[in-house]
Amino acid sequence: MSSSTDGVADVGVLSPVWVGTRSEQLTSDRAVVSAMEAFELWLTEALRELGPVPDLRFDPAQKDVRSVAVDAVGPGNPTLPLVAAMRRGLSDDEARYVHLGATSQDLVDSALMLVATALLAHVEEQLAAVADRLAALADEHRATRCVARTLTQQAMPTTLGFRVAGWLAGVDDARELVRASRPLPVSLGGPVGTAAAYGAAGPAVAASLARMLDLSAPVMPWHTRRTPVLTLATALVATGDACGRIAADLLLMGQTEVGEADDGSAGASSAMAHKANPTRSVLVASAARQLAPLLGSVASSGAGASERPAGDWHAEWQPLRTMLRLAGAASERTRDTVAEMTFDLDAMAANLDRLLGRLGRDDAWAAGQTEHVGVWVDRVLARHEALR
Amino acid sequence: MSSSTDGVADVGVLSPVWVGTRSEQLTSDRAVVSAMEAFELWLTEALRELGPVPDLRFDPAQKDVRSVAVDAVGPGNPTLPLVAAMRRGLSDDEARYVHLGATSQDLVDSALMLVATALLAHVEEQLAAVADRLAALADEHRATRCVARTLTQQAMPTTLGFRVAGWLAGVDDARELVRASRPLPVSLGGPVGTAAAYGAAGPAVAASLARMLDLSAPVMPWHTRRTPVLTLATALVATGDACGRIAADLLLMGQTEVGEADDGSAGASSAMAHKANPTRSVLVASAARQLAPLLGSVASSGAGASERPAGDWHAEWQPLRTMLRLAGAASERTRDTVAEMTFDLDAMAANLDRLLGRLGRDDAWAAGQTEHVGVWVDRVLARHEALR
Amino acid sequence: MSSSTDGVADVGVLSPVWVGTRSEQLTSDRAVVSAMEAFELWLTEALRELGPVPDLRFDPAQKDVRSVAVDAVGPGNPTLPLVAAMRRGLSDDEARYVHLGATSQDLVDSALMLVATALLAHVEEQLAAVADRLAALADEHRATRCVARTLTQQAMPTTLGFRVAGWLAGVDDARELVRASRPLPVSLGGPVGTAAAYGAAGPAVAASLARMLDLSAPVMPWHTRRTPVLTLATALVATGDACGRIAADLLLMGQTEVGEADDGSAGASSAMAHKANPTRSVLVASAARQLAPLLGSVASSGAGASERPAGDWHAEWQPLRTMLRLAGAASERTRDTVAEMTFDLDAMAANLDRLLGRLGRDDAWAAGQTEHVGVWVDRVLARHEALR
Amino acid sequence: MSSSTDGVADVGVLSPVWVGTRSEQLTSDRAVVSAMEAFELWLTEALRELGPVPDLRFDPAQKDVRSVAVDAVGPGNPTLPLVAAMRRGLSDDEARYVHLGATSQDLVDSALMLVATALLAHVEEQLAAVADRLAALADEHRATRCVARTLTQQAMPTTLGFRVAGWLAGVDDARELVRASRPLPVSLGGPVGTAAAYGAAGPAVAASLARMLDLSAPVMPWHTRRTPVLTLATALVATGDACGRIAADLLLMGQTEVGEADDGSAGASSAMAHKANPTRSVLVASAARQLAPLLGSVASSGAGASERPAGDWHAEWQPLRTMLRLAGAASERTRDTVAEMTFDLDAMAANLDRLLGRLGRDDAWAAGQTEHVGVWVDRVLARHEALR
Repeated sequence: MSSSTDGVADVGVLSPVWVGTRSEQLTSDRAVVSAMEAFELWLTEALRELGPVPDLRFDPAQKDVRSVAVDAVGPGNPTLPLVAAMRRGLSDDEARYVHLGATSQDLVDSALMLVATALLAHVEEQLAAVADRLAALADEHRATRCVARTLTQQAMPTTLGFRVAGWLAGVDDARELVRASRPLPVSLGGPVGTAAAYGAAGPAVAASLARMLDLSAPVMPWHTRRTPVLTLATALVATGDACGRIAADLLLMGQTEVGEADDGSAGASSAMAHKANPTRSVLVASAARQLAPLLGSVASSGAGASERPAGDWHAEWQPLRTMLRLAGAASERTRDTVAEMTFDLDAMAANLDRLLGRLGRDDAWAAGQTEHVGVWVDRVLARHEALR
Repeated sequence: MSSSTDGVADVGVLSPVWVGTRSEQLTSDRAVVSAMEAFELWLTEALRELGPVPDLRFDPAQKDVRSVAVDAVGPGNPTLPLVAAMRRGLSDDEARYVHLGATSQDLVDSALMLVATALLAHVEEQLAAVADRLAALADEHRATRCVARTLTQQAMPTTLGFRVAGWLAGVDDARELVRASRPLPVSLGGPVGTAAAYGAAGPAVAASLARMLDLSAPVMPWHTRRTPVLTLATALVATGDACGRIAADLLLMGQTEVGEADDGSAGASSAMAHKANPTRSVLVASAARQLAPLLGSVASSGAGASERPAGDWHAEWQPLRTMLRLAGAASERTRDTVAEMTFDLDAMAANLDRLLGRLGRDDAWAAGQTEHVGVWVDRVLARHEALR
Repeated sequence: MSSSTDGVADVGVLSPVWVGTRSEQLTSDRAVVSAMEAFELWLTEALRELGPVPDLRFDPAQKDVRSVAVDAVGPGNPTLPLVAAMRRGLSDDEARYVHLGATSQDLVDSALMLVATALLAHVEEQLAAVADRLAALADEHRATRCVARTLTQQAMPTTLGFRVAGWLAGVDDARELVRASRPLPVSLGGPVGTAAAYGAAGPAVAASLARMLDLSAPVMPWHTRRTPVLTLATALVATGDACGRIAADLLLMGQTEVGEADDGSAGASSAMAHKANPTRSVLVASAARQLAPLLGSVASSGAGASERPAGDWHAEWQPLRTMLRLAGAASERTRDTVAEMTFDLDAMAANLDRLLGRLGRDDAWAAGQTEHVGVWVDRVLARHEALR
Repeated sequence: MSSSTDGVADVGVLSPVWVGTRSEQLTSDRAVVSAMEAFELWLTEALRELGPVPDLRFDPAQKDVRSVAVDAVGPGNPTLPLVAAMRRGLSDDEARYVHLGATSQDLVDSALMLVATALLAHVEEQLAAVADRLAALADEHRATRCVARTLTQQAMPTTLGFRVAGWLAGVDDARELVRASRPLPVSLGGPVGTAAAYGAAGPAVAASLARMLDLSAPVMPWHTRRTPVLTLATALVATGDACGRIAADLLLMGQTEVGEADDGSAGASSAMAHKANPTRSVLVASAARQLAPLLGSVASSGAGASERPAGDWHAEWQPLRTMLRLAGAASERTRDTVAEMTFDLDAMAANLDRLLGRLGRDDAWAAGQTEHVGVWVDRVLARHEALR
C-alpha cells in the first residue's frame, strides 16, 4: 500500500477497540487480498487433480492492495484486478489456468471465509483463555457473597463465583457456536453456480480445494444461499455478547458508588486528571452494541433473487468484515480484562450488609441463600472441562 | 378476551402474511398466557418430587388475556396478574406453592420457550413438506434447461432442477438450524438466578420441569445469558430466508417480461382488474425483509448488566414473538406456494434461445454446460434423504 | 371484532409499555380501519368538486376488523375487503364512486398517515406537558448541586437543574421534529401513481382530499418515495430517545447505591416483596431500545424498484405502527414519570461530598464549578418558551 | 501514515462503492484528524476573545494518523494523543491553552461534525447536479410513454418523464433534508457538559468557535442529546434512498428481458466475457442497503444514562463515518449514472405494445392515460426551481 492511501484509509482512529489487535491484522484489506491469492494458487493445485496444469511461476511481489481496490470499482468487486495481477508475467496458455472455472463470487466469498477461519481460530484461543481464567475465579469465589441486582435495585444475596460462572457459561456458549460454525465452506460454483467448467468433477474439485484451504465442501455452491454467513455472524454476536456482558457487569460493579470491581484499564481522561476510566470495558461494550445491528444487516442478504442478486451480496462484505474485527477485538480485550481486573471484596461485603440491613436479615440468612450456588457452579465448570 | 379489546388489539390488518395461519394462533397472546399457566401448573408437579405439595384445584376458567395484559403494566410484566389469577380460590397455604421459588423472568422466558417450541415443531412440519415437494421438482426438472441470471443480466444456461435444488438446500439448512435450536431451555432461576428456594435441588427441579414441558435443562439459569434466544432467532431468520429466496426467485421468474413462473396466488388488484398479482410471494418477501432487523433487535439484548438489566430483557419479548409469527407464517405460505406454483417451460426455452442467440451458441453447447448439474442435484437430494 | 379473535390477537401481554395507553387505541387495527373508511368517505366528497356524485348512504355498521384482516390475505392488503364492505348496499352506479381512481396503496398509506397524524398530535400534547414540567424543575433546581458522572465514574459537580435542562432540550428537540414531520401527506396516485382517472385535476383532487383529512398535498404521489415515512419514523425515534434518556438517568439515579431519585412507579416484584422496581422507566427504556432497529427496518423500504416494489412497502406497515405505539406510549408514560418522580437532595449532597473528598475540594470550589450553569439553563428555557 | 499500516488498514477492497471518490477522502481518518486539529486551533482563537492567549507556534508537521489511532486505545478515544502532539514543542504555559476547558467528546464530536459538514456540502453539490440532469430529462420525456410495473407485473401506461420526475422528487427531498440538517452544532461542554472553565462566557465561546468553524452553536452542550446525529443520519439515508431508487429502477429497466435502459457502467465479468454488468447501480444499491441498518445503529445511541454513557457514544463514531462515506459515494456515483445512462425508447414502446395487447387497448387509450402526467411533472419541476 503506497503512502497515497494516507488520505483515504481507515486505520482505526474511530475504532480504538480494534486498533493494535491481532484481529485488526487478520481482517485487514491486506489479509483479504492475501486470502484471494491463496484461493487462486490452490485452485490451480486442485485443478492438477483433473489433468496437467503447467508450472505457474507467480511473481512473488505482493499485490498493491490499494490498486486492487481502485481497479475493483469498474467490475464492482476486486476479482478482476487480483486475477490480472496474478496473470502478469504468465504466457496466455499459462494464464488461462488462473481462476479457471471460477467466478468473482467464488474468489471473494472464499477469501472472506479464509479470513473468517483465521479470525475464528484466534477468537477460540482468546475465549479459551478467558474461559480458563473465569473457571478459576468461579471456583475461587464460589462462596464470596455479594449483592445481586435486578432492575437497578439491590435484590438478594448471590456470590461472586456464581456471577463469574454466568460469564463463563456465556463464553462457553460462544465457543460452542464458534466451533459449530466451522469449517466454513469454500465457494466454487463458477459463473452461475453450476461449476460447469469442471464437468462432473465439480464436487471433487471443490472438495480438493476445500481440503487444501482448510475449508469444507458445501453440498452445492452457496452463492445465494447465505446460511454460512448467517451462522458465522451469529457466532460473532455471541462472542461479542459474552464479552460485552462481562464488560457491562464490570462497568456496573466499578461504578464509583458501587466500587466492587476495577477492570484494570485505568484510562486517562483528557479533562479530568483524577479520573481512571474503565475504558477497555467501555470499548468492549461499544463493540457489542455495534455487532447487533450489523447482524441485522448481514442477515438481510439471504433472500435475494436470481443466481446473483444486484446488491444484496455486495452489501454483505464490509459489514461482515467489521463484525469479524469487532468480535475478534472484543475477545482480545476481554482476555486482557479478565487477567487484570480486580475485585474489592470489602466493598462487596459492605454493600451486602446494607442490603441485609434493609431486609432485616443477618449473615446466616445470606449464607443460607447462597449455600447451594455451588451446584450450579460445578455444572458450569464440568461443561467447561468438557469443552477443552 | 372481552369485546373491549376491539379498540386496542392487533388482529392482523397490517400483517396479511400471518392472518389466518396456524402460526398466528400458536403465537397469540392467548397462547402466551396458556404457556404461562402450563409453566406454573407443571412447576407444582416438579415440586412434588421435592416434598409433599397439596392437591391444588385450579379454577378451570380461562384467564382473561386482556386483564393479564392490563395488570402487567404496574409490575412491568404479566407474571403477577397471572399468578394472582391462579391463586384465586386457593387457601393461603395452597397458594404459596404456586410460583414457588420462581421469578417473573422464569415464567415469561419459559412461556416464550414453550410457544417457540410449538411454533418450531410446526415450522419443521411445513419446511419438511416444502422440502419434499422441492426434492421431487429438483429431480423432475434436473435437465429442464433455462437461463441463469446474475446482476440482472441473462448469464449462462442452468436447469430448473438445479435452481430448485438451491431452494431445497436453503430449506434444509433452515431445518437443520431449527432442529439444532431445540430443545429450548426452561428458565428456573428464582429472583437472582440462583434458584435458592430449592437449595441443592435446583438443578433437579429444573430438570424435572424441563422434562415435563418438553424443554431442556440449562447448565445454569440463563436470565442474562441470551444465547438460546439468539440461536432461536437465527433459525427463524434462516427459515424466513429460505422461504424468501423462493419467493424472490418466483417474483423474478413471474415478472411479465420473464414469464417463466406463476406462484399460484393470483392476487386481485383494487384498481386493475386485469392484474393477477403474486401476492403470496410478495407477502413472504415482506416477512423476510422484516425478520433481519428484528434479529438485530433481539440480538442487542445479550450484553446487559446485573442479574436483570433495566430494559434489555423487556425489549426482547415483542420482537421475538413477531419473529416467531413471521417465520412460521412464511413457512406456511411457502408450503402453499410450492404446491400451487407452475412453470412455463416454453417461456424458459424461449428465454434461453435468446441468450444462446446473443452468445452465438447452440443447444448442444447449452446441453454441455448443464450436462453435469445432476451431480450437485444428487448431493442435495442425498442430504435431503438423510434429514428425513 | 368477534370473540373469535381471542386466539389470535395481540392485546399487549408482551408490551406492557403500551397497554392501556391512549396511544394503543390511536394505533389499533380498529383505528386503522376507521381511517381507511374516512379516506374513502372523504374521497367521494373530494370527487364532488369534479362533478356530480350521487348521495352515497353507507351502512353505518362498523366494519368487522378481523374480517377485513382475513379477507386481506388474498389481495395482499386490506383495501379490497374494506372497499367491498363500503360498497355493500349501494347500487352498481353508486358503488363505482367508492375508491374511484385510487389504488390500494393510496388507501393504506393515507390511513396510516391519518393514524400517525392523530398519534403525533397526542405525542405533542404529552411532550408539551413533559417539557413544561421539566422547565419548572430546571428552573427550580438550577443551583441544586449534584454529581455528574461520565463513563460510570463520578466526574465533576453539576446541578440537577442543568441535568433536567438537558432532558428538556431533548424533549423540545423531539417536539420540533414532530412538528416538522407534519402535516403528513395524503396518498392519491391511482394504480401507477399518475392519478390518471382524475385527468388534469389530479393535483386538485389530492389537495381537496388533503384539506379535508388535515393532511398535506404532496408535490407528486409518493408511492415509492418514502421520505415522509422516514422523517416521521425519525421523529418517533427522537421522541423515544428524549423519553428514554430521562428513563435512563432516573434508572441510574435511582440505583440502590446511588439513591438520588425515585421514578414513582414502585413496581411490585413477583418474587421479592421488599423490592420497589422502577418499572415505568424500565418499560420506557425498553421502548427506546425497540425503536432504533425498527427505524432501520422502516428506512430500508425507500429504495425499491418499479411503481410498487414486491415486498418493500408491505414490510413497512407493521413496523411503522409498532413505532407509533411505542413512541406514543413512551411519551405518555414519561408524562406520568415527570409528574411523580421525586429526588433525594440529601443523597445528592452526600454523593457530591464523597466526590469532593476524593478530589480534595470543598463546597466553595463546587459552587464555583456550577456557578454559571444558569446561562445554559436560561437558554434552554428561552427556547422552550419560544416553542409554546 | 507509515507503510506499517499496510497490514491493518481498510483501503476499500471490500467497498468499491466508495473507492476513489471524493467522499472517501472527505471522511478518511486523515480528514478526521485534520478536523480535530482545526477544532483545537480555532478553540485557541475563540479563547482570545475571553482574554490574552500567547502566540502558539504549532509544529506544522502533520500528525501521524496511525499513531493517533494507536495511542487512542488507552484513553479510549483519539483526543489525548492528538492534544499531546499539538502541545509538543510548546512551553507548559503555552500548552495549557490547547484544549483548554474542553473534553474528549467536544473534540471528537466537533471533528465529526466538521467532517460531516464538508461531506454534506459535497453531497449537496452532487445531488444538485443529479437533480438538474433529472429535471431536464423529466421535461424532455414527459410524453415518452412506457410501461409502469407494480408487484412485478406490467400494470398501466406511464411516461418516462413521470418516472424520472419521481426520482427527481426523491433527490430534492434528500436535498431538503441535507440542508435542514445544517449547520451542524459544535460541541463544547467540557468534562461534564457545563463548560465550567469558561464561566458565564460558555455560550459566547461556543458561539465564536461555531462561527469560526462554520458550525452552529447549540442551545446547550449535546454530549448525550444526540438529535443532531439522528437528523444527520436520516438525511444520509434519504440521500442513499434517492440514489438507490434510481439504481433500483435502472436495474429493473436494464434487465435483459426488459431492455429499456443501460446505466452506462458496463462492468466486466471475471467469468463471462459477454456480460456488461450494471455494476455502478449494483454498488449504489448495495450502499442503500447498508445505510438503513446503520441508521438503526446510530439511532440507538440517543438514550444513554449519565453525562457520558459507557459505550453508547463510542459505538456511534464508526457507523456514522461509514454512513457519511456510503451516502456521499452514492451521490457521486449517481451523478455519473445520470450523465451516462441511456434509454432504449424502442424497447419501451415494444413493452408498452405488449401491455396494450394484453389489455385489448390501443395507443389512443394509452395516450389518454398519460395525457395529464405533465401536471405532476410541472409541479416537481417548479419545486426543483425553487430549491436552486
